[in-house]
Amino acid sequence: MSNPVLVEVVRGNTVESLHRGAIAIVDGDGKSVFALGDVERPVFPRSAVKAIQALPLVESSAADAYGFGAKELALACASHSGEPAHVELARAMLAKAGLDEAALECGAHWPSSQDATVTLARAGGSPSALHNNCSGKHSGFLCVCRHCSIAHHGYVGAGHAFQEMVRSTMVEVTGAHHGADNRGTDGCSIPTYAVPLRSLAIGFARMATGNRLGGERAAAAKRLLSACMAEPFYVAGTGRACTRLMEAAPGRIFAKIGAEGVYCAAIEELGLGIAIKCDDGAGRAAEVVVAEVLSQLLAGDGSVSGRLGKLARPELQNWNGMLVGRLQPAEGLRIR
Amino acid sequence: MSNPVLVEVVRGNTVESLHRGAIAIVDGDGKSVFALGDVERPVFPRSAVKAIQALPLVESSAADAYGFGAKELALACASHSGEPAHVELARAMLAKAGLDEAALECGAHWPSSQDATVTLARAGGSPSALHNNCSGKHSGFLCVCRHCSIAHHGYVGAGHAFQEMVRSTMVEVTGAHHGADNRGTDGCSIPTYAVPLRSLAIGFARMATGNRLGGERAAAAKRLLSACMAEPFYVAGTGRACTRLMEAAPGRIFAKIGAEGVYCAAIEELGLGIAIKCDDGAGRAAEVVVAEVLSQLLAGDGSVSGRLGKLARPELQNWNGMLVGRLQPAEGLRIR
Repeated sequence: MSNPVLVEVVRGNTVESLHRGAIAIVDGDGKSVFALGDVERPVFPRSAVKAIQALPLVESSAADAYGFGAKELALACASHSGEPAHVELARAMLAKAGLDEAALECGAHWPSSQDATVTLARAGGSPSALHNNCSGKHSGFLCVCRHCSIAHHGYVGAGHAFQEMVRSTMVEVTGAHHGADNRGTDGCSIPTYAVPLRSLAIGFARMATGNRLGGERAAAAKRLLSACMAEPFYVAGTGRACTRLMEAAPGRIFAKIGAEGVYCAAIEELGLGIAIKCDDGAGRAAEVVVAEVLSQLLAGDGSVSGRLGKLARPELQNWNGMLVGRLQPAEGLRIR
Repeated sequence: MSNPVLVEVVRGNTVESLHRGAIAIVDGDGKSVFALGDVERPVFPRSAVKAIQALPLVESSAADAYGFGAKELALACASHSGEPAHVELARAMLAKAGLDEAALECGAHWPSSQDATVTLARAGGSPSALHNNCSGKHSGFLCVCRHCSIAHHGYVGAGHAFQEMVRSTMVEVTGAHHGADNRGTDGCSIPTYAVPLRSLAIGFARMATGNRLGGERAAAAKRLLSACMAEPFYVAGTGRACTRLMEAAPGRIFAKIGAEGVYCAAIEELGLGIAIKCDDGAGRAAEVVVAEVLSQLLAGDGSVSGRLGKLARPELQNWNGMLVGRLQPAEGLRIR
């Protein structure tokens, strides 16, 4: 009935809070390697599938036409912190396509990095759509529209030709139904579709292995995941979980968070795709779960596994820097 | 085993996330009126018990000696947003006792209000301990120390004479054990003790009714809760849940959030104390639960109940202001 406890929040000697959720791990053939909790329940992947949504950017040749390297492709797959380097790169991507921030339809918000917010405010600035954590993805979207001569106005809408391109890509890669009946609207206004957690794991197993994608798409998938692994700062930002996970095992782990407690990951050398959903939507818990799952899957490499295991047990400090508690994987979070 | 689902997060037509937890409602005699989930499990109340921790401020006569009215007492019970009015009132409270922010041992952080953070940064400022959401409570603590000639250095420590005063007050009001074995350290460095959820409800039922407190303490409790209900802005801040709940039924509801999904509340006219803990520590969920519980308890007043019911069903908007979902009480959240 209820999903198992995956993460404990400990203060002093007491478990203060706990997080339940589900984990799906599948191989490139779509075979379940490990499942914990209800992996058939539909989950909105939110930003965790940005790498799949970025496939048209490579497949359309827009990325090549605009001379995009690993940093630009990583930013197209990112939920970035709105740090200056993220903002400037998104601006440069748009400029390559002859556009500027006025074309972005993601909405504006202050940088998710408090440091970046304070820096921007001190400089007398205000947030624009470029500071939106999704601005890299949207810049990639707009580049595809321009390169393919798709009129970009309204590109975020479910009825727009470009979103139809993204939707059909999601259907093909995950194998899941994406329709009006399971559609919601994401924070940045594009559609997001609730699909079984297992389908998200299948999607990333295919992204990592190329299985069932065909040669061109397999190459595009490899290029996108490689870009993220090569430039993890551009996928998230300073101190962020995605960045630290990918830095812990350079070139070996792809990991991407989504809002409301979702994490997707892939390990190419094992041919595995991983999808996690914490029932309560807590990002802090999803971060612990993905780090622990990756640590256990890479147990053969003690050094990498140790670094990931440490990320799965973050200390909690209070405003005076005192150690007051920690997050930790629950007993039941064990991949047999 | 697992606590029931109390809150659903809905996007489109799909439940995206859910929150489990427990609710205890007791009367002034400590008799259980309603219980849902495990109300015996120990819970750190965190900031939800600030009104109880503020009893020494009134009982010691420090509040009278320094001329504190409802605003100062409300701020002593507050987790404020660090807005200018909060910061200045905390500063003024300290000044009455001949102290300034250097005496505060709560640590500094940027205001929890993003608007206040941006305003502070734009003015070239940096956060001090006065911006800490607990600075009003700590200012009250320091006023007691000064008035009672207790050396205030180290006043946050579990071994300090002042914290022993707070601890014994907590024991007497809640009836629960507060010892080294169930002690943790709070965000602002004072001790916090994990006690049964039911004990927290008992504490607030006694605060609301005066039962078992004795005449002097009963009067102090009434004065503190009345101050919070009279000045709800000073208990939290612009747009915050505690402020909006107390504004929804002026003078009739006391409500105070604590970190990690805790809420305590009291309704004097019904002689009830209420304590809520969301298992996963989500404040957004605790806010929905307390609003719904209060709405159901005050169902006899359609206007008040309606306002509270609306607070229990907040809409979720994205960065473009589009309605993308809502939070809502789960089916099972029904006080029979």
